[in-house]
Amino acid sequence: MRALIYDGQAPRIDPQYDDPSPRGGEALIRPTLVGVCSTDLEICKGYMNYRGVLGHEFVGVVEALADDCPPRYRKLVGQRVVGGINCVCGKCDMCAGGLSTHCRRRTVLGIDGHDGCFAERFTLPAVNLIEVPDHVDDDRAVFTEPVAAALQARKQLHVEGTPYITVLGDGRLGLLVAQVMAKLNASVRVIGKHERKLALCEKWAIKHRLTSDITARADQDVVVDCTGSAEGLKAAMAMVRPRGKIILKTTVADQSGVDLSPLTINEIELIGSRCGSMADGLTAIATDEVDVISLITKRVKFTDAPKALPLAADPDHIKVLIEMD
Amino acid sequence: MRALIYDGQAPRIDPQYDDPSPRGGEALIRPTLVGVCSTDLEICKGYMNYRGVLGHEFVGVVEALADDCPPRYRKLVGQRVVGGINCVCGKCDMCAGGLSTHCRRRTVLGIDGHDGCFAERFTLPAVNLIEVPDHVDDDRAVFTEPVAAALQARKQLHVEGTPYITVLGDGRLGLLVAQVMAKLNASVRVIGKHERKLALCEKWAIKHRLTSDITARADQDVVVDCTGSAEGLKAAMAMVRPRGKIILKTTVADQSGVDLSPLTINEIELIGSRCGSMADGLTAIATDEVDVISLITKRVKFTDAPKALPLAADPDHIKVLIEMD
Repeated sequence: MRALIYDGQAPRIDPQYDDPSPRGGEALIRPTLVGVCSTDLEICKGYMNYRGVLGHEFVGVVEALADDCPPRYRKLVGQRVVGGINCVCGKCDMCAGGLSTHCRRRTVLGIDGHDGCFAERFTLPAVNLIEVPDHVDDDRAVFTEPVAAALQARKQLHVEGTPYITVLGDGRLGLLVAQVMAKLNASVRVIGKHERKLALCEKWAIKHRLTSDITARADQDVVVDCTGSAEGLKAAMAMVRPRGKIILKTTVADQSGVDLSPLTINEIELIGSRCGSMADGLTAIATDEVDVISLITKRVKFTDAPKALPLAADPDHIKVLIEMD
Repeated sequence: MRALIYDGQAPRIDPQYDDPSPRGGEALIRPTLVGVCSTDLEICKGYMNYRGVLGHEFVGVVEALADDCPPRYRKLVGQRVVGGINCVCGKCDMCAGGLSTHCRRRTVLGIDGHDGCFAERFTLPAVNLIEVPDHVDDDRAVFTEPVAAALQARKQLHVEGTPYITVLGDGRLGLLVAQVMAKLNASVRVIGKHERKLALCEKWAIKHRLTSDITARADQDVVVDCTGSAEGLKAAMAMVRPRGKIILKTTVADQSGVDLSPLTINEIELIGSRCGSMADGLTAIATDEVDVISLITKRVKFTDAPKALPLAADPDHIKVLIEMD
């Protein structure tokens, strides 16, 4: 089959990649629409030392199940699904403690030890899959994973009073985080570098400013770093008030030295935030809690997928989707 | 007067430093015993860009008050005191919000814009001072500030269940933090590099291991970084479990690049921790909640103070005290 792979060189389509076959509770999925995420770009810079098929954002159709799948999963065959990207053991202390996204033996779709979804077929544990309701089309469903990640940032906050929240970064994730934070009893603003992207905030009635127009005043109760750049944390430390919180969504391959002494001096809480609940993500999309359609700026055919990755790094684009043929 | 100053060169005693005079609510204090802290050593490497008289750990006697001090402070004259190191405005949003240690206009004794206590006389706001009970001798009282800082780390934790807590670092602060954490319903261990220092943990019935004897297993609920080195955070990230907490007490002048992606991937909370309540610190000492006397490994006369600083960086020493003549 054809698969978009990263093998240490520039990402390319391998026309004869081995067909996957579902094993040990897995489903075989034929993706119909997939999304490019900044993590994909970081992987191509060396992040996670990953080699294999790229991609972890998808909506697709279940084609088959491994023989050992329990009968309750049979109804999934032929269904349109999205799916959690962490493939977990179910047995380690993390899984037993309800933190299975942190499973000690996990692999992660297209990120760590498990071939991703930028291919004609891929596998995921059947337990990871969620059926997509008919009224949620592919264009919206494909955003389930990043919306879940945005919701996770909100879940990790314990909001009291009416805090000032700054979302740093007007990229894909920043614009989703801004939307979910805007539902809180909070004063939310987005700080970004791109007028065109910030214009979306206007549509959503979310305050926004250009990075060049603000002075960091160390007065924000919460700053969410969605910049995807090592500079983001530095800016966040300058904006957050003493005893405030920074939620760190950024993971970058090349992390330059950031002086962390402001964290100690100002007793800041820095909270790492990663994957969220796919069910919550899909619900937020299905109930129109978030507008994802406005984020789509480009669609490419799978044949052109190698070009899609650089486009996703282009400041003129927000979400780049790849249509599988 | 004589004062131990740092002016960008090696710290030295200036025999003719200007005598301070108390102004604007300040008291004039004659220190009797002062302690060397790692922050003093970092300042001499450039931390905080500080220039002036060094030192912020003291016990001393109040000699005079500024004329504008309210009458309620008059009883302090002639008394033995310890004092909070943050000199605050009382008016900014932080002060108004009960976070006066984070005052926007603060100066900090011997650290930031306010001459320190390694001198024959120094000043502090009278409101910062606490009388030392007669039964607490100078040797114990001089530890009030670092004990307060250790207690602050405990205050910032919300302990549920019986967590595993690792204190990283067997230096001055690590051994104090270990003692205060050991009072929690928790399994506490100290990881350090010095057998002689760890031997004190034996005396206190606190578990301890040499750094070289352990393998980081990402299984600690809480890690408190008291290493005073940029390597500490890296080790802490390897030891703490996913969704665990790292309390960062370390402030270093020279922070090398630490890859922070484990924070995001493992959704770790990194909590900066600085000064604590002096009243709480003095109470913990007065009630023997902490053993500070065992930490004293060296006493020098003020004349030899410039030698005291390198001694405090010597792995054979824990607390170095300077006796004022």
